[in-house]
Amino acid sequence: MTINTAVERFDEPLYLESGRILDSFELAYETYGELNEDKSNAIVVFHALTGSHHAAGRYEGDKKFGWWNPLIGDGKILDTTKYFVICVNVLGSCFGSSGPMSGENPLRLKFPVITISDMVASQMKLFERLGIEKAYAIIGGSMGGMQALCVAVEYPEFTDRVICVASTYATQAWAIAFNRLAMEGIVNDPRFKNGQYEKNDFNEQGLFGFAVGRMAGHISFLSPHSMDSKFGRNYVATDGLYELFGRFEVERYMQYNGHSFAKRFDPLSYLYIIKAMNIFDATRNYDSLEHSLHHIKSKLTLISFKEDKLFRPSEMEEIRDTLVNLGRGNEVDYVCIDSDYGHDAFLIEYDKFDFYIEKALK
Amino acid sequence: MTINTAVERFDEPLYLESGRILDSFELAYETYGELNEDKSNAIVVFHALTGSHHAAGRYEGDKKFGWWNPLIGDGKILDTTKYFVICVNVLGSCFGSSGPMSGENPLRLKFPVITISDMVASQMKLFERLGIEKAYAIIGGSMGGMQALCVAVEYPEFTDRVICVASTYATQAWAIAFNRLAMEGIVNDPRFKNGQYEKNDFNEQGLFGFAVGRMAGHISFLSPHSMDSKFGRNYVATDGLYELFGRFEVERYMQYNGHSFAKRFDPLSYLYIIKAMNIFDATRNYDSLEHSLHHIKSKLTLISFKEDKLFRPSEMEEIRDTLVNLGRGNEVDYVCIDSDYGHDAFLIEYDKFDFYIEKALK
Repeated sequence: MTINTAVERFDEPLYLESGRILDSFELAYETYGELNEDKSNAIVVFHALTGSHHAAGRYEGDKKFGWWNPLIGDGKILDTTKYFVICVNVLGSCFGSSGPMSGENPLRLKFPVITISDMVASQMKLFERLGIEKAYAIIGGSMGGMQALCVAVEYPEFTDRVICVASTYATQAWAIAFNRLAMEGIVNDPRFKNGQYEKNDFNEQGLFGFAVGRMAGHISFLSPHSMDSKFGRNYVATDGLYELFGRFEVERYMQYNGHSFAKRFDPLSYLYIIKAMNIFDATRNYDSLEHSLHHIKSKLTLISFKEDKLFRPSEMEEIRDTLVNLGRGNEVDYVCIDSDYGHDAFLIEYDKFDFYIEKALK
Repeated sequence: MTINTAVERFDEPLYLESGRILDSFELAYETYGELNEDKSNAIVVFHALTGSHHAAGRYEGDKKFGWWNPLIGDGKILDTTKYFVICVNVLGSCFGSSGPMSGENPLRLKFPVITISDMVASQMKLFERLGIEKAYAIIGGSMGGMQALCVAVEYPEFTDRVICVASTYATQAWAIAFNRLAMEGIVNDPRFKNGQYEKNDFNEQGLFGFAVGRMAGHISFLSPHSMDSKFGRNYVATDGLYELFGRFEVERYMQYNGHSFAKRFDPLSYLYIIKAMNIFDATRNYDSLEHSLHHIKSKLTLISFKEDKLFRPSEMEEIRDTLVNLGRGNEVDYVCIDSDYGHDAFLIEYDKFDFYIEKALK
């Protein structure tokens, strides 16, 4: 598998949904496999909140593979001997694309609010530059699924195959509430300095308030049921039961993941991306979900997970039902995967859902 | 209804489950109605995590009634013309009973970890002093239900009627995880000063990290479903959709409740009480739940709420099933109330469950 990574600069204005304008911007992206001569074999993969354009493969010295590595590669479901897979770091993120902390004079809290539509609009400019007028398929999980749905509605000619995994047509109160914990954790940490921090203010440890917010995220990715099976009431063997700060295993898991995440992600980027997710609503600018989904021309595959509390199966079912009501029942495939992993399943239980991606690509 | 409030001091050692000893301690409590001559009409009400002994009525200048006011009073379900209702502030709390910040030289983080058994043991000393050898009934919701179950197991002769509402026999991983957010929020706030804070360090605003932790609590009290019906995607009318810190109604609700709570509760007390809840396990010191519940002699009424994710109906069902397996099916009444309010229902939807309390008291 050929991996290429690049940053593309756009010296043209990007008109944002908010009315604000980005005079110029950069997008970091990675590609796997080769674009064929007529540029018809591209599959666009959209990443989630904390993901990056590094979706597959491994660089020298890396411990971990890209976040969807089991699905992308030679002979895999997204087969890089056949397809040219491309993943772009979203606008607002902190892995090379323009965001609140990018550039020599970062805009910080003056960076404009970005929406899912804006993320998609910026990526369409990149695809255009690469000569990809039409993608073979587009796919994304969680916030990546929002981007995929957004393309399906706003750029109906761009592809014939759209796959949304563990996602929604509009973020609901439960998910918004969890995102608020992260926001509060970040802004209430004095070291955040109202966005005027320097990276080495907390580089070694990460911002504690951010870690707390991320711990909340880790709860939301699971469910009461999946926590029972994953942790039960197991207590950390070296901690005392009657020590005030003694921990159950679930607490150690949260601490470990919260703090390690806070070291590698930028808190301002996090604020901007959860904002984009919170205000995502495929019905905005339309009278109704029907009116919005009416624009879709591609075949839509919706994959949800039974225990996902963040983006519930019922939300994906609403998309399915709306399309059925529009007489488009033949153009939508919905499946709810039985999984104990909650929202996390889309990054874990590949063998339970890769078949449906394979089917969608045919 | 006669209300009395008092603080009782015990100059005798309390031997704690942890092996530590409290040389002396104080308990604040409130009573409603009159104890009859043979002291047989007492109903003990146990409060939840953030509650206090002020369960009913209203003092001059108070805006709010006690936390279970709709249930306690003349002619109400816990009828103070018939019963003598008593509620004791738990050990470790911050409303008059001994806790980490009580006394002239507060023990702070040197205060011992308290368990639900310890809370109950201290209260039994108070009941003894008041001459109440046997209560007519005992009742509690959430952590109050843990105390009630604990009395049923450890003091089987103390009452013939035990009512547990929205509670469990052992706190499960989901609830522990939410408590961890509060703990992290508190200890990571620099103004917590490793427990060496002075109250006026943050009196006016409360500790921000504590507020964040409490916001997490407010998520756990609800469910995805109940948040949908309570807030939907309603946006605060005066906030801009494209302002980074613009809020949905659910976020305003969390902020308001989180910050106002942090002003009126002590963070160290919170740490100690959530610790007590986390390590509550009615099976500890026994081989199994069967072996533990085998000790119960009273009739047990279990009231749970369908959307309660913190202490799920399935946890109460395990208590019921265990008693049925022990051949005690006649001595347990279980009901699961259909409610959208999640865990909060026990403080809101009285009309849906008061009938079962009335029935249990007969």
